[in-house]
Amino acid sequence: MHSSRIISLRSSLPILDNILLSTDQGRLKISATDLELGINYWIGAKIEKDGAIAVPSRLLTEFISNIKEEKISIKVEETEVIIDGEKYNATIKGVSPEDFPTIPDISRDFLFSISSKDLLNAINQVAFAAAGDNTRPILSGIFFKIEKDVLKMAATDSYRLAEKKIKVIKSDKSSKTFIIPTRTISEVGKILKDAGEKVEVCFDENQILFNFGSIHLISRLIDGQYPNYEQIIPTEFENEVLVDKQELFNVCKVASLFARESANSIKMSIKPEKVKEGEKEKETGGILSIVGQGVQIGESISKIPVKTKGKEIEISFNAKYILDVLPNIPEKNVEIKFSGSINPCLIKGEGKQDYLYVIMPLRN
Amino acid sequence: MHSSRIISLRSSLPILDNILLSTDQGRLKISATDLELGINYWIGAKIEKDGAIAVPSRLLTEFISNIKEEKISIKVEETEVIIDGEKYNATIKGVSPEDFPTIPDISRDFLFSISSKDLLNAINQVAFAAAGDNTRPILSGIFFKIEKDVLKMAATDSYRLAEKKIKVIKSDKSSKTFIIPTRTISEVGKILKDAGEKVEVCFDENQILFNFGSIHLISRLIDGQYPNYEQIIPTEFENEVLVDKQELFNVCKVASLFARESANSIKMSIKPEKVKEGEKEKETGGILSIVGQGVQIGESISKIPVKTKGKEIEISFNAKYILDVLPNIPEKNVEIKFSGSINPCLIKGEGKQDYLYVIMPLRN
Repeated sequence: MHSSRIISLRSSLPILDNILLSTDQGRLKISATDLELGINYWIGAKIEKDGAIAVPSRLLTEFISNIKEEKISIKVEETEVIIDGEKYNATIKGVSPEDFPTIPDISRDFLFSISSKDLLNAINQVAFAAAGDNTRPILSGIFFKIEKDVLKMAATDSYRLAEKKIKVIKSDKSSKTFIIPTRTISEVGKILKDAGEKVEVCFDENQILFNFGSIHLISRLIDGQYPNYEQIIPTEFENEVLVDKQELFNVCKVASLFARESANSIKMSIKPEKVKEGEKEKETGGILSIVGQGVQIGESISKIPVKTKGKEIEISFNAKYILDVLPNIPEKNVEIKFSGSINPCLIKGEGKQDYLYVIMPLRN
Repeated sequence: MHSSRIISLRSSLPILDNILLSTDQGRLKISATDLELGINYWIGAKIEKDGAIAVPSRLLTEFISNIKEEKISIKVEETEVIIDGEKYNATIKGVSPEDFPTIPDISRDFLFSISSKDLLNAINQVAFAAAGDNTRPILSGIFFKIEKDVLKMAATDSYRLAEKKIKVIKSDKSSKTFIIPTRTISEVGKILKDAGEKVEVCFDENQILFNFGSIHLISRLIDGQYPNYEQIIPTEFENEVLVDKQELFNVCKVASLFARESANSIKMSIKPEKVKEGEKEKETGGILSIVGQGVQIGESISKIPVKTKGKEIEISFNAKYILDVLPNIPEKNVEIKFSGSINPCLIKGEGKQDYLYVIMPLRN
């Protein structure tokens, strides 16, 4: 019962702790909302008489998931709902449906349809990079841009940026951009885990609809202009490194243990093997070392072999920002590309362009 | 690194956030304590020079578990420990070993040895029934009684009681009783998960030693006289029921959803099928129904078929007490035996006597 999920947060109005059960053209419709985000969920039912009632979401969900009955009958009597199964019978006190806020049905301008698997994957790769706080509401959302048959999703908290490009299944060929609240995206992600093969996305000025078939999720959009993030993605590099993803994760993790005093700042240095004068631009072997240090804690130095191109570099990062992205890169090896120690640095899977991650270095 | 586990609770003294590394007759000994409970853990090492240092437990454990090195060298320089592996090198600031409290080595009066699997199983079946608060310290512990080659373990919070009997592997034939703190038992349970086949238990007035081979756990005992619980285990019954454990769990769980207002009180009734006058004492079919009720919530009535003997009964329980025990009963069916609706009631696996559970009913 998906609808019960979105009840978890910020229900300032007690009525929002309920879900609305109503008959809808021969089916049972279950609706939940927190005013920003609404879910409608239709399930097959034999309707004997039309009606509606709002009932406590948590109680109903726990009841249904525990009784394990194949079929139940639901009857509404004034503000009570009577549920009868083979072994279980219950009367649950509800609320008049008039008190339940309606979830707007948006006029459906089809935008695109996309593979559920691709969208879920993209959400995992992008959403974590959005700003956790609300000081700049725009950055707490996920940026979507559909252009022809390519969807770009991006998120940034202004210290790091993740961008993913996916080919959609079908689009209406118009170009559109919008910003979706992180919470909506996280609910979309949860539904996608059990969803069918594709999702349809429709758009309506300040609202978005994710149509999963028997589930519709409708959300407000975040108002405003998303920063022109593309200009900060570096395109020219002084040094490049190719490194085993898991090894990089381990050394960053270890260094971060010692970096607690210094706000997670770890120092990365890359030392290429000595090469002859004329071969400076060739890829060579080298050593990546990571240092974590705390006056009261001690220090760690870890070294792993890499392939590298370009000259030596020393650069500092927030370890968390590297640890966040690595599990989301599917490739075994990652490329790190530097443009000097005070400019943004690019991380991506070996040989890939569809998923990019940019981090600002820390100043020492 | 088991030793790091016991550091989690109540370290009032900062020194107890450390673990002590020391050389001990050609092995490395790792020690942790919270003054009530101590663990010594020996691991194989090539010792070049004897020495000791106390280091922050969490940092060392996280460091070791992240570096995935096969071999490391450990060197102590004043109050720093220097760890060198192939890829990782770290210096961790520590504390002088003199500041670390010693874990008493108890004079080892062998009591009994027991199968690790049996002991872990018994801990799971008994420990949850101990009192969670400390108003009666004795009831917050687990009672042990070894007599000949049978170990009895019991726990009660005075509303319910769990008792388990196990045959030990070997015992010194003396009879002894003692009360072990729940926290000690829970640490013993954690170590048992990866322990060898058997555990040796030694005793020393007010201390107990669990010897797992390369791990020793030493704990204080709880002082005092454990209540004579055996007298409250009922032996004569007016009604008996045989019921599918999972079905009973489900109906109690559902009823408890509706019993939030009434402190989890659910009402159980057993109705035998009508039988002829002369056959009153025969086992017959019957219906067990469970009701949960809340003025503001509504109510649920669930019914499941059972086998029963004796007359009708209506009795109320704290749902939690039934839900707690059922997952710990291995048998598919459970027996519930009643001695009237205000006297303690017995629950156990079908046909078994080694694991007994007693609940006090609630008064309506």
